[in-house]
Amino acid sequence: MKLISWIGVAAVAAVGMLASAPAAAQFAKPEDAIKYRQSAFSLMGAHFSRIGAVVKGEAPYGPSVATDAKLVETLSHLPFAAFVEDSDKGDTGAKPEIWMNREDFDQKARNMQQAVAELSKVAASGDERALKGAFGDAGKACKACHDDYRRRR
Amino acid sequence: MKLISWIGVAAVAAVGMLASAPAAAQFAKPEDAIKYRQSAFSLMGAHFSRIGAVVKGEAPYGPSVATDAKLVETLSHLPFAAFVEDSDKGDTGAKPEIWMNREDFDQKARNMQQAVAELSKVAASGDERALKGAFGDAGKACKACHDDYRRRR
Repeated sequence: MKLISWIGVAAVAAVGMLASAPAAAQFAKPEDAIKYRQSAFSLMGAHFSRIGAVVKGEAPYGPSVATDAKLVETLSHLPFAAFVEDSDKGDTGAKPEIWMNREDFDQKARNMQQAVAELSKVAASGDERALKGAFGDAGKACKACHDDYRRRR
Repeated sequence: MKLISWIGVAAVAAVGMLASAPAAAQFAKPEDAIKYRQSAFSLMGAHFSRIGAVVKGEAPYGPSVATDAKLVETLSHLPFAAFVEDSDKGDTGAKPEIWMNREDFDQKARNMQQAVAELSKVAASGDERALKGAFGDAGKACKACHDDYRRRR
């Protein structure tokens, strides 16, 4: 990797997020996994909401939209490795159905990651008119998973 | 921005993290700011620890080191905009001294960001022998701030 340029490094790192490390080994206890995924979702939500404020006209359109969207995209690859065994108990809103229907859950996660990557692409393109649609699609992809797999607390 | 390449976008987004959005306006309530910064620190800690495991020989050296370091670098720019007024109260380990010595706190934050950027650079270079030193420097920069401004809970 020594000769790789800095821009290359940034790109490699961005793509590297797609390949997550072995899951359970990263968390000593189920509580650690719960805290980790909640932290990732919390930051995703905060930055997604900032784009939402722009879409709703409550905040001005500007370069922060692309920064927020890129961050949401990066974060979107983090939480799912943390849905490890035995982390359906404790201080979590994750429904046991996640572990019963893991394939469907993982597919919905991938749908969200794709929608969020598209949002990031649109945001980076500077095409303000396309932002609302891409934001809406990403929101729907989030909701699809929440409807089935998140318990309201 | 329309003609910018995707690699360029990744680089721009990485640099964009350095310029944070107006602080207090992003958080409706002090509790939101507390949750946000705790989430960012929590993810930083998790990924920093994964590099630590490699440095200590508890996990194998591999490409995940660069991914983790890049993520820590990205996250290192998030928490500080969330130390808004009135967020020294509530469920936080942040000492009131942060707001009394804000310049020193901000300087220590910048020192950490620099050390973490250096760690990310070393990790991306693939120079395994330099990793331990860069990791140690980053850890010291974290600790310098924790010693003065974090209350053990």
